[in-house]
Amino acid sequence: MTQLEAMGAKAKEASRFLMTAGSKKDEALRAITNALRENSDAVIKANDIDIENGRQAGLRESLLDRLKLNKERINGMAEGVEQVAALPDPIGTVLEGRTLKNGLKIEKVRVPMGVIGIIFEARPNVTSDAAALCLKAGSAVILRGGKEAINSNKAIAEIMRDAVESTGLPRDCVALVEDTSRQSATELMQLSDYLDVLIPRGGAGLIKSVVENAKVPVIETGVGNCHVYVDKSADLDMAASIIFNAKTSRPSVCNAIETVLVHKDIAEQALPKIKAELDKKNVEIRGCGRTREILGDCVVPATENDYIIEFLDYILAVKVVDSIDDALAHIAKYSTGHSESIITSDYECANKFTDSVDSAAVYVNASTRFTDGGEFGLGAEIGISTQKLHARGPMGLNELTSCKFIIKGNGQIR
Amino acid sequence: MTQLEAMGAKAKEASRFLMTAGSKKDEALRAITNALRENSDAVIKANDIDIENGRQAGLRESLLDRLKLNKERINGMAEGVEQVAALPDPIGTVLEGRTLKNGLKIEKVRVPMGVIGIIFEARPNVTSDAAALCLKAGSAVILRGGKEAINSNKAIAEIMRDAVESTGLPRDCVALVEDTSRQSATELMQLSDYLDVLIPRGGAGLIKSVVENAKVPVIETGVGNCHVYVDKSADLDMAASIIFNAKTSRPSVCNAIETVLVHKDIAEQALPKIKAELDKKNVEIRGCGRTREILGDCVVPATENDYIIEFLDYILAVKVVDSIDDALAHIAKYSTGHSESIITSDYECANKFTDSVDSAAVYVNASTRFTDGGEFGLGAEIGISTQKLHARGPMGLNELTSCKFIIKGNGQIR
Repeated sequence: MTQLEAMGAKAKEASRFLMTAGSKKDEALRAITNALRENSDAVIKANDIDIENGRQAGLRESLLDRLKLNKERINGMAEGVEQVAALPDPIGTVLEGRTLKNGLKIEKVRVPMGVIGIIFEARPNVTSDAAALCLKAGSAVILRGGKEAINSNKAIAEIMRDAVESTGLPRDCVALVEDTSRQSATELMQLSDYLDVLIPRGGAGLIKSVVENAKVPVIETGVGNCHVYVDKSADLDMAASIIFNAKTSRPSVCNAIETVLVHKDIAEQALPKIKAELDKKNVEIRGCGRTREILGDCVVPATENDYIIEFLDYILAVKVVDSIDDALAHIAKYSTGHSESIITSDYECANKFTDSVDSAAVYVNASTRFTDGGEFGLGAEIGISTQKLHARGPMGLNELTSCKFIIKGNGQIR
Repeated sequence: MTQLEAMGAKAKEASRFLMTAGSKKDEALRAITNALRENSDAVIKANDIDIENGRQAGLRESLLDRLKLNKERINGMAEGVEQVAALPDPIGTVLEGRTLKNGLKIEKVRVPMGVIGIIFEARPNVTSDAAALCLKAGSAVILRGGKEAINSNKAIAEIMRDAVESTGLPRDCVALVEDTSRQSATELMQLSDYLDVLIPRGGAGLIKSVVENAKVPVIETGVGNCHVYVDKSADLDMAASIIFNAKTSRPSVCNAIETVLVHKDIAEQALPKIKAELDKKNVEIRGCGRTREILGDCVVPATENDYIIEFLDYILAVKVVDSIDDALAHIAKYSTGHSESIITSDYECANKFTDSVDSAAVYVNASTRFTDGGEFGLGAEIGISTQKLHARGPMGLNELTSCKFIIKGNGQIR
C-alpha cells in the first residue's frame, strides 16, 4: 500500500463517521475557526518560509501576494469557515418521495459523497475553504495544494486536523498530501478505490492533466473562454458598459470575457464606443480584418489562437460577424462552455441565443462576471463546473453531495 | 482524424440540432417505430448471420437466446421506442429560478447532455432502447455493441438513421461503431473532444476497463454485489421469503442478492428456514464456519472471494455476524454500492441501517429486486448507476440530461 493509498483508506474510514455526524460537523467547523485564530502566529511563521522560498525561486510579486498570509487574511479564512458552519446542512434533505402501488415507500435523500479530492494551486486560503465545504457536506477531504504554499498548507492542515479531533470526529476527515511532486498529483487522480470525486481548481494546464490522467470521477472547473455577442439591435452604450465590466473588472478570473463578437450592421457605430471604454484601462484589442478596417492599425491582427486561449489579462479578441448564426457558430467552436452573453433588444434573438448556446451560464444584457456562487445565492462556492455531468456552473454545498434511495416495506417481493 | 473522431464530430454537429428540436424528436421516434416494424425481415436476416456465427463460435444456448430476434421481439423493440416517444419531454423544465436583488432573473433549466456514448454487450434490443432514450433526452448517441450482435446492430442502426433523417433531423443523431475490436472501445472511451458522457452497460469486466481507460466522464452501471441482513428482530418467514425472491427470481441480474448476513442470536432458527426456501431452486450455499455448524456439510465452506464476486447464478454466500455493526462493516467492505436490505422489526435498527449503508438503494423489509427504473416509476431506464456522481440508482430520462443557467438582465454589471 502506498502512502497515498493509506491516506485514502483512512479518509474512507473517517467518511463513514461523517455520514451520520449531523451537527457534530458544525462543532468541528467552529473548532477550526477558533484554532485558526489562536494559531495564526504558527501559520504566519510557516508562511514566511514559503514566501522566502518563493522569492528565491523568483516568483512574480503578484504570485507572492496571493501566497502571503497575515493576521488579517488568516482571520478572513477563519470567518469563511464560520460562515460555512452557519449554512443549512444539505444532508438528509428528501429530494422526492412517493408510495408505490405495492405499498413500498420510496424516498430519494441527499447523502454525502464520501471522500472528495481537491487539487489546487498557489493560494493557501483554499486549504481551509475547501476543507470546510467538504466537511459541511459530510465528506472527508484529501487536499493537494501547490508546492509554493506547502509549508503554509501543512500548518493549516495540522491545525484543522487537531481541531476536528478535539470534537470527537476522526482527524482523517481532513488530510493533506505533503508530497507536491507531479507524480503525487497523478497518483491522487487514480486513487479510485478511495476517492469518490476529484475537483481540480486551477488553470487550463491542471485541468488538462486531470482529464488525461484521472481514473476517479472528476468535476472540471474554471476554464472560461467567455464571449459577448453584440447583436445589431443592441443598445450600444449598454454593450460598451457590459464589455468594459466583463473584461476589466477582474481580468484574471474565469468569468471575465476573452472575445467580443459584433454584428456587421452596427460594427461601425459599436466598435469605436467599445474601444473608447476599453482604452480607459489600456486594453489591447486583437481584431479580425473588418475590426481593423474600422478601428485602424492600433488593433493587433487576431490569429486563430487568439480566439482559442484565455488571455486572463487586459487583452480582448474582437471579430465582426455577419449574423447571430455566425456568432453562435463561433461560440460553439471556441467556447469552453463557461459563460456567454448577448446584448440585444430583439426578443427573438435573445431567445435564440439562450436556447442555442451550450454553456453553463447564458446571459442576456448582463455581464458574464455574475457567474459566481455568491452572486447566484448559493452561499458558498467550491468552484465553477464547466462539464455537463453532475454539476454545471457555480457549485455550492448541494453539488458536493450525492443521493440515495431509501425504500421501506413490510415484506414486499417482486 | 480517425474514423471514430469523424463520427464524433458528426454526432456533435447533429446534437446542436437536437438541442432545440422539441417535438421533432417524437416524430423521429415514431418514424423509428414504424421503420422497425416495416423492416423486420431485413433485421431478422441480419440476425440470422449473427446467430449462425454465434453457433459456430460455440456460444451457449442462453446467450444465443438473448441474441435471437424474431418478429415478436422486433415488435417489442418498436413498442419500446413508441413508449419513449409518449413520455414527457424532460428538456426545458425549469428546475429553479429567482430574481436577484440587482434585478437579474436567473433560471436553472434542464438541457440536453450533447453526445452520449453507450458501450454494451450482447443483446441487440439495447440498440433501439438506448438510442430512443438518448434522442428523447435531446442528445446524439454513439452506440458500440458487442461483436456477437454486430450484423443485427448494423441493420437496426441503419433503419433508425434513415427514419431520423426522414423527419428532417440529421441522420448522425444516431451512430453505430461498426468496428467491434477492443481497440475501438478504448478509443471511444477517450473521445473527450466529442463525447459528453459514456455509459457502459455490461459486466464487471467492461466496467473495469472503462474505469481504467476512460477520459470521457463516465456513469458506471450495473455491478451489484447485493446483501440482505437478517437482524435478530426479524420476522423469519418474511426473511426467508425475501431472500428466496431476491436470490432466485432472476439470478443473472444486478439487483439479485449474492450474500446473506444473519445475526447470531437468531441464526439457529433462521438458517434452516432460509435453506428450506432456497432448496426449492437448488441454490448452492457457501457459508462461514458458524453457518456450516448449523446447516451441516451440505454447505460449501465460503472463501473470502465468495463475499467479493457476483455469482449471478443459483449460488449464495451466507455469514453469521455478531451484531448489526458487524453486518454494516461487512457491507461497507464488500458491497458494490448497488442495493442492500435489512429484515428487522426494530425501529432503531431500521434507521441505523438506512442511515449507514452507503448504497444506491437501501431497503427495509423488502426485496432488492425492486431496484429498477420501471419499478421506481421512472418510465424508462438506461441503466442503474453505482457511482455517486451525477446519478445514483436507476437512471431515467432526467439522468440523461444536464442543466444550464439562463440569466436575463437589462444592463447589469458587477
